Amino acid sequence: MSGTLASARSPVTPALREIQQPVRDRLDIVIEEMTRLVSSDLPLIEDVSGHLLRARGKLFRPTLTLLASGVEERPHERAITMAAAIELMHLATLVHDDSIDHSVLRRGLPTVNSLFSHQVSVIMGDFLYSRALAALVEEGDVEVLRILTRVSNELTIGEMRQLAAVDRLGFPESEYYELIRAKTATLLSAACEVGALCGAAAHRDSLASYGDRLGMAFQIADDILDYVEEAAVTGKPSGLDLREHKVTLPLIAALPAMPPAHRARVDDLFATDEPGDDLVADVVSIVIEAGGIDYARQQGARFAREAEAALTGLPDTPARASLADAIGYVVARRS
Amino acid sequence: MSGTLASARSPVTPALREIQQPVRDRLDIVIEEMTRLVSSDLPLIEDVSGHLLRARGKLFRPTLTLLASGVEERPHERAITMAAAIELMHLATLVHDDSIDHSVLRRGLPTVNSLFSHQVSVIMGDFLYSRALAALVEEGDVEVLRILTRVSNELTIGEMRQLAAVDRLGFPESEYYELIRAKTATLLSAACEVGALCGAAAHRDSLASYGDRLGMAFQIADDILDYVEEAAVTGKPSGLDLREHKVTLPLIAALPAMPPAHRARVDDLFATDEPGDDLVADVVSIVIEAGGIDYARQQGARFAREAEAALTGLPDTPARASLADAIGYVVARRS
Repeated sequence: MSGTLASARSPVTPALREIQQPVRDRLDIVIEEMTRLVSSDLPLIEDVSGHLLRARGKLFRPTLTLLASGVEERPHERAITMAAAIELMHLATLVHDDSIDHSVLRRGLPTVNSLFSHQVSVIMGDFLYSRALAALVEEGDVEVLRILTRVSNELTIGEMRQLAAVDRLGFPESEYYELIRAKTATLLSAACEVGALCGAAAHRDSLASYGDRLGMAFQIADDILDYVEEAAVTGKPSGLDLREHKVTLPLIAALPAMPPAHRARVDDLFATDEPGDDLVADVVSIVIEAGGIDYARQQGARFAREAEAALTGLPDTPARASLADAIGYVVARRS
Repeated sequence: MSGTLASARSPVTPALREIQQPVRDRLDIVIEEMTRLVSSDLPLIEDVSGHLLRARGKLFRPTLTLLASGVEERPHERAITMAAAIELMHLATLVHDDSIDHSVLRRGLPTVNSLFSHQVSVIMGDFLYSRALAALVEEGDVEVLRILTRVSNELTIGEMRQLAAVDRLGFPESEYYELIRAKTATLLSAACEVGALCGAAAHRDSLASYGDRLGMAFQIADDILDYVEEAAVTGKPSGLDLREHKVTLPLIAALPAMPPAHRARVDDLFATDEPGDDLVADVVSIVIEAGGIDYARQQGARFAREAEAALTGLPDTPARASLADAIGYVVARRS
């Protein structure tokens, strides 16, 4: 692994670096542990693993696990392995997601399916997932296994819900929440709950609840970014979800509030297989004008407040302060 | 599920039916258990699961688990869940295999990727696997989990080895055995070992060893069938592995024994992206003439003898007799 390459592309912003401060040293050990868990004598697997570890993200889930395990300032050593296994499970779903979506880039680097092949990406996702599970089994904590096998099943159900949400303008807000809970919030919740089981068991329910609400706010922020984030090259929002006919909260909220002419433009986009830049930009403006982003921000803020409330009973430690800061980070992040 | 449809297409031959006799009633419960384990309130998942359960195969792995658990005539109830979970793990790998290979048919019925989509098949494989694991976690036997998470990782390594074996005429016989062990024998071995842990723990090592050798013989027989089985429509061997440039034991054994003109013909085939029927038929004949099938049969028979030897210390029960019969079935089967 080339440290220079990895750090040059590091997705860790100053705000996140501060949040990770209490567990910085242990996060480095998580990376070593991930490397150990995926090691293989098969060159192809080593190649793909090496690529994935170089392209690794901001380690947000391991950060949550380590912080949760440390809220009483006596984290268990095994939190490291748990954090590594959780990140590998997350990586496995990303690899399969990219394969399903035929994505070419992730975090600015080529996806496994584009760099190797579709075949390799399906197998590699299975490999990462089974290695993560095997590591958790070695730890022998059936309660942790129960949480994480349930979550990994929820993730697949979230993917199925995602497929069912495409091309469906009548997708109801309630189903949107079920979708993002399955797809995103359950794993963040599990990352916190498993962390709690490694040193702060008394706060298990609070931390699971915190992670769930944080995950909801996280995914809503993600779906808002798709409408407002300016792409580096074009200076315009990517509108990727719209291009792929994915119905998310900003659009769901905007639809009932828009005038008929605007609604017709949305219908146009959903009737077009590969909508052009102008059509996408138009619909982005229409959604913003109809208050879709404002509404989504309000809902994100509501989940953020609930996440904050879930932390109430926790002791006043640096780990707890970082978990509180993570809420603001999730809502305010720009990438 | 339509029983008529299922039985009309049943891949269970008379020989296999006799082997399954001691566990016939319990196999029916395994099917019910599989149905329970994959149930979901998401219509798309129910559709795909229903299709997979209708298209289910001969339940060879559950048969082994139930027979192994019964060799001392006091099988545990939980062998049912273990058998169901093992078959679901097997189904998950088949669904991903078909997706990777873009296969259109399996067991005469459309594959998930052809009937639904590539996306659905990747997600559904993940769904089946995580449900199988969750069921095993509920059983709470860490030793069983250790065996099966290791095996599921071996299966993915087998798939990677398979990719590396394509287009590689110098593929060594030793690597072929590593490949088929990872791809096939480990799961059959685990099916027997887990069965042993459910009622015949004293015979755990013997049964694991039996399953391993049976699995090796099973896969060699499969690879021979590809050269000799007459397809229903054409009356000629399918030669599917050759078409896909997959190097298996008959070809590995034949290569050093064939005259230069024949070797040139093999090189032709491997240099052709989609080899025609005549070229495939030629190479099939060349491999047979060079003794490739004879050699593969000898190796299959060697593993069969080792499987038989592994049964030596087992008590003389109907389950043990069926396990012995399964060896002959595996070597002699025509599909």
